[in-house]
Amino acid sequence: MALIVQKYGGTSVGSTERIQAVAEKVKRYHDAGNQVVVVVSAMSGETNRLIALAEEISPRPSAREMDVLLSTGEQVTIALLSMALHQLGQDARSYTGGQVHIRTDSSHSKARILDIDGERVKADLDAGRVVVVAGFQGTDEEGNITTLGRGGSDTTAVAMAAALDADECQIFTDVDGVYTTDPRVEPNARKLDRITFEEMLELASSGSKVLQIRSVEFAGKYNVPLRVLSSFEEGEGTLITLEEEDVEKAKIAGIAFSRDEAKLTIRGVPDHPGVAYQILGPIGEANIEVDMIVQNIGKDDTTDFTFTVHRNDQAEALDILQKTAKELGAREVESDDRIVKIALVGVGMRSHAAIASNMFKALAREQINIQMISTSEIKVSVIVDEKYLELGVRTLHEAFGLDQVES
Amino acid sequence: MALIVQKYGGTSVGSTERIQAVAEKVKRYHDAGNQVVVVVSAMSGETNRLIALAEEISPRPSAREMDVLLSTGEQVTIALLSMALHQLGQDARSYTGGQVHIRTDSSHSKARILDIDGERVKADLDAGRVVVVAGFQGTDEEGNITTLGRGGSDTTAVAMAAALDADECQIFTDVDGVYTTDPRVEPNARKLDRITFEEMLELASSGSKVLQIRSVEFAGKYNVPLRVLSSFEEGEGTLITLEEEDVEKAKIAGIAFSRDEAKLTIRGVPDHPGVAYQILGPIGEANIEVDMIVQNIGKDDTTDFTFTVHRNDQAEALDILQKTAKELGAREVESDDRIVKIALVGVGMRSHAAIASNMFKALAREQINIQMISTSEIKVSVIVDEKYLELGVRTLHEAFGLDQVES
Repeated sequence: MALIVQKYGGTSVGSTERIQAVAEKVKRYHDAGNQVVVVVSAMSGETNRLIALAEEISPRPSAREMDVLLSTGEQVTIALLSMALHQLGQDARSYTGGQVHIRTDSSHSKARILDIDGERVKADLDAGRVVVVAGFQGTDEEGNITTLGRGGSDTTAVAMAAALDADECQIFTDVDGVYTTDPRVEPNARKLDRITFEEMLELASSGSKVLQIRSVEFAGKYNVPLRVLSSFEEGEGTLITLEEEDVEKAKIAGIAFSRDEAKLTIRGVPDHPGVAYQILGPIGEANIEVDMIVQNIGKDDTTDFTFTVHRNDQAEALDILQKTAKELGAREVESDDRIVKIALVGVGMRSHAAIASNMFKALAREQINIQMISTSEIKVSVIVDEKYLELGVRTLHEAFGLDQVES
Repeated sequence: MALIVQKYGGTSVGSTERIQAVAEKVKRYHDAGNQVVVVVSAMSGETNRLIALAEEISPRPSAREMDVLLSTGEQVTIALLSMALHQLGQDARSYTGGQVHIRTDSSHSKARILDIDGERVKADLDAGRVVVVAGFQGTDEEGNITTLGRGGSDTTAVAMAAALDADECQIFTDVDGVYTTDPRVEPNARKLDRITFEEMLELASSGSKVLQIRSVEFAGKYNVPLRVLSSFEEGEGTLITLEEEDVEKAKIAGIAFSRDEAKLTIRGVPDHPGVAYQILGPIGEANIEVDMIVQNIGKDDTTDFTFTVHRNDQAEALDILQKTAKELGAREVESDDRIVKIALVGVGMRSHAAIASNMFKALAREQINIQMISTSEIKVSVIVDEKYLELGVRTLHEAFGLDQVES
């Protein structure tokens, strides 16, 4: 008998019909001999309805009261799903975050889970009940209601699984698993049966939006096997686990990409120690996150410095950079948002130095000019002209044999 | 400095505009130097929306889960009202029933309050905050969410006022107070400045629907001064208190009436000890509440027995009575729903025997035939033909000088 924690998002519980379908799915897992804890989000649309009410009253509502307001969304869903399970003859009981002692810090709207007391849930499971828990919410030490921020229900599910020492945490979404790349760009993209936590994190941070980064981090930290699968179709989905032993064969997990980048360059900066800080310090103070950074020594003891930011921050970053350029006596400043980032992700890179060069070779063969390169232990990212996005992704997908079934 | 508990019902908080109006009203009381606790209901329509969702899923949803579902309605209101108070620069904090430890028994959907811990609320009040509490809800010993049933927010307010030893509990409604009778029937009906708990209870049980009976009972038991006043108009409303000293002047508080009655009569029952139980026992077993009862000894050692029930129960009561008649060998059974009940209520009756006879005289003067009479310590009720309802109410209103301002 396995203990499974399942999480269904807002779309999966977006209507009473869908809630009934979820109940049937949950009951099948229970009937197959599993103990099941279900974590649910608010019905899709409900959170926006509540936010609109708050906005009618206040342009900047108190974070504490927003949490009181928004946490009702999940509370509605847990009640309805429990009723739907009863209707199928399945004993079930709902709990708010506070009721199962999901203790968080007091950072309203972005609280972090500190502790979960699983005793009450275990007693219900042992009594043959399905336990339905409100995602996204908890209470702080003083009993104030808190919420975990966007994607918080995934985190609730993983934390619940860790607290209960569950055999698996299953995240039901509107996709049937994690793919080697976005199938809308590369029709040969293949669903992965398995992927490591690290690869999943790198894919997520490079634009693949299947799971929230925090929940993957959490699952990795507590070694909770995590599975992504579809609410609407049958299938095994993708299992996210600790690194496998046989990474010998230079395994590439997939290709992520992002259209949300903008590139800024400052040229002809008189080079001296501390110049990087002088350039990036004011950007960081404005709370703008910098992604890739490249510095080249130019001619005449000057340096060229290029970095990328989120496209939304481009205008503000450019303003700041122009001021800095004047102060430093730099020659010129440029900015370009007609670029994209493409990243190759896989734990196999660690032991196979040839992967990066193979990547550059494949892109060169298609005359795709690489503007920037950045590498991490299990990822190589390049910045290219946005017109090469699809061609670049497909080229790399084929070059690394990602359309081939894993042997 | 007074401590006031105010309660606003669903209509008073039925939109964000109305919630803002309530916030302004609350702030005025606070600015006048009072400590204010506000108890609110769900926005009007919200409870019905939630019930409809549940009904889409289950024809008989679990009472526990219904309470989890419905309690979100008040939770939305407390958050929005707190935001509206902040927006006016008034510090405020919201609490669910569970958060202020409104401890109830475990009778889901009709729980009774056992205990309230006012410490947290007092600390907030002393810090200059308005405290906003969700009405209608609490938690049982195991932390399960419970609701108090219809009108439960009134009860929450009164219980809160008792726990905090408040100076007054103010119930804001869509009427501006308690009237001597329904102004739609008697245009000269006059708003009462004061009324006793007992009178209020008798008026409520005789058809006047200003307050829920349970909240009045509760207020009487804990001697919480209760005031009914309008959400939408200014005014002092009606204060409901313990009996006043000067009841010398045969004070009549008002006239209640009810159209919801039906009368059943069984004639020619062979009279013997226990016959009343034989007739009413089966009615009670069917959970039908009997209101007035009259027994007359007829001729031939038989007895005639008449009683009233709620009009909804008439058909079922008649079926039962016909069976009983057969068993007892009674002569005949009759039933009539073209009747109404009119009741004169006032603590002054205790010391003034003449009131009942003055009532009968006034009705006789207008040729209104009395079909049944029932008296309690502070009430005289009569059953008359429904066509005499308006005439009867107006006649008594004038005969007892209820349109005259209290001296």
